[in-house]
Amino acid sequence: MHEDIRHWRHVFKLDPDKEISDEHLDRICTSGTDAIVVGGSTGVTFDNTIDLLARVRRYELPCVSEISTIEAVVPGFDLYLIPVVLNSRQGQWITGRHREALKQFGKMLPWESLVPEGYVVLNEDSTVARLTQADANLGRQDVIACANLSEKLFRLPVCYLEYSGKFGDMDLVREVRDTLEESQLFYGGGIDSAERARQALAAADTIVVGNIIYEDIERALETVVDR
Amino acid sequence: MHEDIRHWRHVFKLDPDKEISDEHLDRICTSGTDAIVVGGSTGVTFDNTIDLLARVRRYELPCVSEISTIEAVVPGFDLYLIPVVLNSRQGQWITGRHREALKQFGKMLPWESLVPEGYVVLNEDSTVARLTQADANLGRQDVIACANLSEKLFRLPVCYLEYSGKFGDMDLVREVRDTLEESQLFYGGGIDSAERARQALAAADTIVVGNIIYEDIERALETVVDR
Repeated sequence: MHEDIRHWRHVFKLDPDKEISDEHLDRICTSGTDAIVVGGSTGVTFDNTIDLLARVRRYELPCVSEISTIEAVVPGFDLYLIPVVLNSRQGQWITGRHREALKQFGKMLPWESLVPEGYVVLNEDSTVARLTQADANLGRQDVIACANLSEKLFRLPVCYLEYSGKFGDMDLVREVRDTLEESQLFYGGGIDSAERARQALAAADTIVVGNIIYEDIERALETVVDR
Repeated sequence: MHEDIRHWRHVFKLDPDKEISDEHLDRICTSGTDAIVVGGSTGVTFDNTIDLLARVRRYELPCVSEISTIEAVVPGFDLYLIPVVLNSRQGQWITGRHREALKQFGKMLPWESLVPEGYVVLNEDSTVARLTQADANLGRQDVIACANLSEKLFRLPVCYLEYSGKFGDMDLVREVRDTLEESQLFYGGGIDSAERARQALAAADTIVVGNIIYEDIERALETVVDR
């Protein structure tokens, strides 16, 4: 399963704290996307996470959890993505909460189901940047340094450039992908049309489409382009 | 060279900010220790680091740098140990300074010469604990969680339990070593006699002897026991 993420080009990220109708969920899950990621920055609980998992499990596609809080660790997902916020000013978002989670769940963790992500938060005005106190005002060389830290020092399997709500600098995203030798590059932020999906797919290994699902389902579905 | 650390059982750590006579340095370098580590928490500069490197280089044993500040990155060492302080409350000691260093030196770095260490600071009263604002008051399960974070999430080649100035809990050190599957376990702190060296060698893969060099050279040399 761990290796399957290598083949993911497009994923939808569903936020357990947001409402989605059965009809919209059905269209998302049968859209041809490669996987569903369940996760969000705020308001994520055990209950709303397990509810969403149960609804997505009716479909055949992979369903993975991106863990943002220890309270919302729910068994039964195919994989667990573990964000390591490389540009946070606070230790808790890089190792602190992770240590707590490993302490609490350590004995029962199937290590092969964990996928640590070297997260780089790049939109200063986003909820995730404020929450993690990220040093998000990074230049080109800073972002490349984050990617090298993620892959060369920490040997994380995924590097994730998160522009959260804003469409990023695709030249920089492409440069990061060309810098990485082993890691998979995830890109997220502002993908709200087929055109932007194509641009992001040309720059990153895997694109993550989130907010637009809740704003305009038709445009969200259009991001599932040929790839 | 990277793989050579696997065979290290005993290393001396020399602090560039402390004086050592040629005679004492000669005895340290011909003691039978496996390597010399150059590094310290405070007062480390480019000049005092390169001076010490030049003096140690007259001997045949490996000489490696443990980087604590970007100003003291000196070319010419066999390896560069990069502490990642897993239990720091401040992002700068886990990823922040590392990002700066990778930004500054990225293009000329031979990645294979870098050895990131998952550092766990365990003496609350030490200089390194205050400097890094480490959450050093850890229970047994917290330390095991740090080791798993170091090896399973970050895949760091070395996990380093640093009791800095205090002789640690050898039962816990042994438990950490038994938890680790791939990483090398370094132990440092309070090794000031042959007896303590033997106890630490029975618990860790590699023991690091530092302060006693500057307090009592005879007892420092006694720590190079049969192993």
